[in-house]
Amino acid sequence: MTLQTISLNRSHGGAQGVYKHASRETKTDMTFSVFVPPHREGAKLPVVWYLSGLTCTHANVTEKGEFRATCAELGLILVAPDTSPRGDQVPGDPANAYDFGLGAGFYVDATEAQFAVNYRMWSYVTEELPQLIAGNFPVDPARQSILGHSMGGHGALTVALCHPDRYRAASAFSPIVAPSQVPWGIKALRGYLGTDKEAWRRHDSVALIEDGARLPDLLVDYGDADPFLAEQLRPELLQSACEKAGISLLLRRQPGYDHSYYFISTFMADHLRWHAKRLAA
Amino acid sequence: MTLQTISLNRSHGGAQGVYKHASRETKTDMTFSVFVPPHREGAKLPVVWYLSGLTCTHANVTEKGEFRATCAELGLILVAPDTSPRGDQVPGDPANAYDFGLGAGFYVDATEAQFAVNYRMWSYVTEELPQLIAGNFPVDPARQSILGHSMGGHGALTVALCHPDRYRAASAFSPIVAPSQVPWGIKALRGYLGTDKEAWRRHDSVALIEDGARLPDLLVDYGDADPFLAEQLRPELLQSACEKAGISLLLRRQPGYDHSYYFISTFMADHLRWHAKRLAA
Repeated sequence: MTLQTISLNRSHGGAQGVYKHASRETKTDMTFSVFVPPHREGAKLPVVWYLSGLTCTHANVTEKGEFRATCAELGLILVAPDTSPRGDQVPGDPANAYDFGLGAGFYVDATEAQFAVNYRMWSYVTEELPQLIAGNFPVDPARQSILGHSMGGHGALTVALCHPDRYRAASAFSPIVAPSQVPWGIKALRGYLGTDKEAWRRHDSVALIEDGARLPDLLVDYGDADPFLAEQLRPELLQSACEKAGISLLLRRQPGYDHSYYFISTFMADHLRWHAKRLAA
Repeated sequence: MTLQTISLNRSHGGAQGVYKHASRETKTDMTFSVFVPPHREGAKLPVVWYLSGLTCTHANVTEKGEFRATCAELGLILVAPDTSPRGDQVPGDPANAYDFGLGAGFYVDATEAQFAVNYRMWSYVTEELPQLIAGNFPVDPARQSILGHSMGGHGALTVALCHPDRYRAASAFSPIVAPSQVPWGIKALRGYLGTDKEAWRRHDSVALIEDGARLPDLLVDYGDADPFLAEQLRPELLQSACEKAGISLLLRRQPGYDHSYYFISTFMADHLRWHAKRLAA
C-alpha cells in the first residue's frame, strides 16, 4: 500500500499532511489527512480518529476544525478520512441528494448489490486505513480513540461500541445516535443494507447498546440551535439507552450553537483533552 | 448604510457574522466578516482589522484563521474585509491572472481611469468600512489595530504607517513590504496608479518609512519555506528601513513554515496577544 502525498504543511509545530492511496476496500482512490504533532525521534504517539459528516471530505475538519494547537500541545496524531468512495464509476443517489451516496457513506459495508462493491467504509475505517496509518506514521496502535460529527458521530460511536478493546475513548459532536429511527438513517441503512432491520442494529448506537455493547463512558456535545436536533439527532434516545445500560454519558447541551464547524471548533479542544486523558496511560 | 446578514453562527462563546452592504466607494456590494466575542451588555470593545492576501475573500481567515478562541479570551472584535470589489461589471486582469484585479485590490485607490471607479480599497478599508462597523457593532473606535497576510500585510502596514494615531498596533504575516521593488507590487501599483513612481511611495511600507512615517513597533512573522519569500516579500528591506528609522521591529523567521493558513493559524494567537497588550490601555 503506497501513499501519495498531496500536500504537507508545517503547522503548530507539527506537520499537516493530505494523502491519497488506492483503496482495496472501496476500489477507488481515497484521500485522507493526518496531523503529526511535534515529537521526539522514535516516539510512538496516540492517534485520534475523526469521522466527518454528510457532504464532507477530509478537508472540512482539516481546514476548520481548530484541532492542531491542542493536538500539538497534547502530542496527539489526528487522522481524518473521507466520508465515502469517490469517482465517476461510483454509484450515488439517483436524485443526487446530499444524504446518500457520494459524501454520505454512513460508515457501513453495503450489502445491497449496487453499492456493495465500493461502499465499504466500515472496513475502510476500521481495518484498511488503520493498517495504512500504522505502517506509515509514528502511531502507537494500543492508544487509539475516535470522535466524529453528525453522520461521523454515528460512525465514531458505532465503531467504538463494536471495538471496545481498541478505542480507549469515544466522543461526538451532534451525532446521529439512532439511525434506524430517523429519516437520514433510515434512507441510508435501507439503501446500503436493505430492508431487513436486524442488519441495521449493528450500525445504530442505541440498538447496539440495547443489544449489550458497552463503553465505560461517552462525551457528546450538541447545540440547542441545531436545525437537525429534533428530527435527525435525537440525543435523548442515547441518553435513555445509556441510563438503562449503566454507561456514563456526559451529554452537553450547548446554548445557541448550531450544526456547523463554528460549533465543532469551539469544543474541539475540550474533546481532545477528554481523549488525551484516556489515551495517557 | 444598511447591512444584510449573510450568516451568523455562535462560536467560542461569541458570534461570527458575515455581512453584505452596498459600498459607496467600490460601487459594488461588498462582503465582510465580524467576530464579536462574549461581552457584557453595553461594553465597547477593541477592534482588530485583518486584511487578506491575493485571491482571498473574507472567508479564508474566517474559516481557517483560528482567531476566535483567542479573540473570545481577550475580548477582541475581529473584522475581515474582502480584498477587492467583485462583480461582472468590475474590470479585472486582462489575462485573468490571480495577482491583479478581482481578489487583488492591493488596498489602494486606483487613479488609472479603467480601475478608478471601483478599485477604492484604501478608502473602503480606512473610511467607509470603519464607519459602518462603528455604527453597527459594539466597538471602541479609540482602540483599533490592524494586521494582515501577504498583500494584506502590505495593506496593514501601509494603513498603519499612514494613520499612526488611529491604529495602536500593527503586525503582519509574510507581508509584501516593498511593492515598488517586487513583481507583484510593480504590476499592481503600475496598473492601479500608473507609471509615476512617486505616487507609489505612499503604498510601499519601506518607502513610507524612508519618507518619515513612523510607528512605535511592528511584529512580522514569515516562514523560511515560503516560496514567495526571496522574490516577492523581501523582509530584509523592511528590517533595514526600520533599523535606519529607529522603529522597533520584531521580525521572526519561522523555520519550516510556508505562505499558507497553516502558517498563519499557528501564530495568530501570538499576534492577537501582541495587539491586545497595545489595545488594553
